[in-house]
Amino acid sequence: MSEIKDITSRDKDFASWYTDVVKKAGLVDYSSVKGSMIICPYGYAIWENMQKILDQKFKETGHENVQMPMFIPESLLNVEKEHVEGFAPEVAWVTHGGSEKLDERLCVRPTSEVLFCDYYKKIIKSYRDLPKLYNQWCTIVRWEKTTRPFLRSREILWQEGHTMHATEEEAIKETLQMLHVYEDFQRNVLAIPVIVGKKTEKEKFAGAVASYSLEAMMYDGVALQNGTSHYFGNGFAKAFGIEFLDKDNKLQTPYQTSWGVTTRMIGSLIMVHGDDRGLILPPKIAPTKVIIIPIGNDEKVKEVTDTLCKKLKELDISYKVDERDKTPGFKFAEAEVKGYPVRMEIGKRDLENNEITLVRRDTLEKIKVPVQDVADALETLFVDIQNNLYDRALKRRDSMIYEANSWDEFKEIATSKPGFIKANWCGDEACENKIKDEFSMKSRCLIDDEEIHTDCVVCGKKAKYRLYFGRQY
Amino acid sequence: MSEIKDITSRDKDFASWYTDVVKKAGLVDYSSVKGSMIICPYGYAIWENMQKILDQKFKETGHENVQMPMFIPESLLNVEKEHVEGFAPEVAWVTHGGSEKLDERLCVRPTSEVLFCDYYKKIIKSYRDLPKLYNQWCTIVRWEKTTRPFLRSREILWQEGHTMHATEEEAIKETLQMLHVYEDFQRNVLAIPVIVGKKTEKEKFAGAVASYSLEAMMYDGVALQNGTSHYFGNGFAKAFGIEFLDKDNKLQTPYQTSWGVTTRMIGSLIMVHGDDRGLILPPKIAPTKVIIIPIGNDEKVKEVTDTLCKKLKELDISYKVDERDKTPGFKFAEAEVKGYPVRMEIGKRDLENNEITLVRRDTLEKIKVPVQDVADALETLFVDIQNNLYDRALKRRDSMIYEANSWDEFKEIATSKPGFIKANWCGDEACENKIKDEFSMKSRCLIDDEEIHTDCVVCGKKAKYRLYFGRQY
Repeated sequence: MSEIKDITSRDKDFASWYTDVVKKAGLVDYSSVKGSMIICPYGYAIWENMQKILDQKFKETGHENVQMPMFIPESLLNVEKEHVEGFAPEVAWVTHGGSEKLDERLCVRPTSEVLFCDYYKKIIKSYRDLPKLYNQWCTIVRWEKTTRPFLRSREILWQEGHTMHATEEEAIKETLQMLHVYEDFQRNVLAIPVIVGKKTEKEKFAGAVASYSLEAMMYDGVALQNGTSHYFGNGFAKAFGIEFLDKDNKLQTPYQTSWGVTTRMIGSLIMVHGDDRGLILPPKIAPTKVIIIPIGNDEKVKEVTDTLCKKLKELDISYKVDERDKTPGFKFAEAEVKGYPVRMEIGKRDLENNEITLVRRDTLEKIKVPVQDVADALETLFVDIQNNLYDRALKRRDSMIYEANSWDEFKEIATSKPGFIKANWCGDEACENKIKDEFSMKSRCLIDDEEIHTDCVVCGKKAKYRLYFGRQY
Repeated sequence: MSEIKDITSRDKDFASWYTDVVKKAGLVDYSSVKGSMIICPYGYAIWENMQKILDQKFKETGHENVQMPMFIPESLLNVEKEHVEGFAPEVAWVTHGGSEKLDERLCVRPTSEVLFCDYYKKIIKSYRDLPKLYNQWCTIVRWEKTTRPFLRSREILWQEGHTMHATEEEAIKETLQMLHVYEDFQRNVLAIPVIVGKKTEKEKFAGAVASYSLEAMMYDGVALQNGTSHYFGNGFAKAFGIEFLDKDNKLQTPYQTSWGVTTRMIGSLIMVHGDDRGLILPPKIAPTKVIIIPIGNDEKVKEVTDTLCKKLKELDISYKVDERDKTPGFKFAEAEVKGYPVRMEIGKRDLENNEITLVRRDTLEKIKVPVQDVADALETLFVDIQNNLYDRALKRRDSMIYEANSWDEFKEIATSKPGFIKANWCGDEACENKIKDEFSMKSRCLIDDEEIHTDCVVCGKKAKYRLYFGRQY
């Protein structure tokens, strides 16, 4: 049971707790390549599930997968001014191929807007070529100084959608559609409540007209940006000279979007749902929904285990049987660290009453179930666990949203309570910066469904916006 | 119909034919990043199908997916001597992160043996930790001077399995098992006959004890190595200091394998099955099995199209409907270029007899089928097409395998007939080199099921081996 005892309490030291969980649950391991992590089988299986579900959504909404080069020549990165300023400081540069120095150095893609634009310039000629709805699953590189598993890494596994449209209206619709796809996925599959909104000018993506973000709140009250969807207008398209002939045979510039989510989402799963015993995975994303632990070397136990495995296989419920030469206590503890949604204990004594025991990972509640009812009981449990995790996360998140109507109030909350602060803002970047400098809190996103009823919390001038502020991963 | 007319005849200029097909079928496009290609939606969909089918096989045989770093520090690449000599001349070097020069340069992985060994050293301590059966899907980089879509590229999409075993016997078994998984996939899914065998010392993978290869023959009689499986012995493990305690508590060094296939397989699909009209895809790997072309703006045509689409969807048969504002002739030609296994023409005149027309891409045969029998007819056609493509490829391949029993015979065949030459060899690298220098033919793989009945075709000394020789992509 050393696994449990070795996990730092999350209320005592959240950062150590996180590191303990990612490591002990077997999600990642450290490599001897500085800043790069190894995604272990269990962690990668979660990512594969995320990919599978999202990829299907992307295809259902008309998107196609492609694969673009992983290198960007320096001159190509330089085409869009804001973009290069945003990314150049954090890219990895390839300068040699074999023993030869390259004529032009190449960066490993930190994101692929310029590669897609360069390609779109070539293939978009007519309104008939639009929209172009491309996505790619790949690895990007950003040269971070300090790294943390899943949250900040030099290598990031992600997907990036890049689309081109004939009209502004259609591109904006696409930006919001994909934002909604992400929101729906996080809410209904990851059981993570997210606040969805527009970023301020200061916080938007380098080169975008508007960036929308999904803001999740971790157990410790710190925000995690769990995906973004950007509307680019036609700025990149103009910089790249992308033009098409419209129905009236007039040259037009198309409108662009991009949107992406990364393995960060695994970080948010851990920090939203996990507890002092380890990971807790929502059934809809768990690679293994049921861990089966037969107890004792008994014929009847073996027989029922086999029967139930067969049943689960038929029902396409993912499971694993832990038949290792270890004590049940060790296996229970490991099952908790790994966050399998349901643990199934099959023991001789229970079987005398024709029962087995199911243990919910979210509440640790033990439920005795007649052998013949196991399938139904599991299906009900999966729904309950999924809902309970969401409700619990929502409740905690909502309990950490505060409202500040003055500088004093803001200061009081910011210095004493972790979480989001709702506040009014005049729109001046100086005020946004003041909050960042004093409290290390950034604006998360605009609130567009609430009335602006007081003045800017920083300068006291007339407020134009309502915003969520928060610390971030 | 310009698509067809623009394809060079394969018998006239095979290289131009290949380039025309990959481009016009929409498989790849050129990027402005030298040496890197763009994999377009249709090409990427083929790769996704390959991944899906192989990944399932890997998992069924007990393998787990992981993700290792994409960078290898120079010192790590240098650990195994033969390996670094094999790869250092063709890697891309990252020397700067942002504006800072790195203390140690990193190469972008050309293959990941050293990364896996570095990790295995950390996690393998006991016989209980073995075997380790890991695989990863990723992109690798090899700094090729000249590139061709799918065949030779600076960026290669592939999978690489890396496994560690307690015994030599088990590792050899794994090497051969995965070779067989590949062979089965290529034969039964890609409809490509392959010769499977061991490479000579000269041609084996840098650092391996034994390399096994799958040799496919293209339409033009040139070989394409369509995958490899390597047995490493414990050379890497020793170089990396990987040791485990066996059941008797003694320190042992584990035995290793690696195996991989790449997007090259798409190149082989094109060059084995394609014809002067374009690509021909075997049904089992085609992203779209049926292209439906409704002819004329007719109510009945629309109705039957909708009914049949619904039917195909139910049966999980992939299809697309081409409803663009183009002539049927244009659509037929494009369907041929893209190599959809079956074209379904739905026209008013056929429907008067309650029929539709199916056209096989492999033979271009037209078949009238009663509307209610379409599903059955398709299922039969898919099997026929799959088998016919394999048989046709096998027949052509076998017609280009020659046997040479003397230097004169070898010379005569090598200078007049494309294909494989079977010949006896003394085992001396000088003889292997002479064939390479005179005819640009490399040894493909050893033949282990035929008697050695003459002397070495080069030097006339006693032959130890029988080999396939051939030119290669």
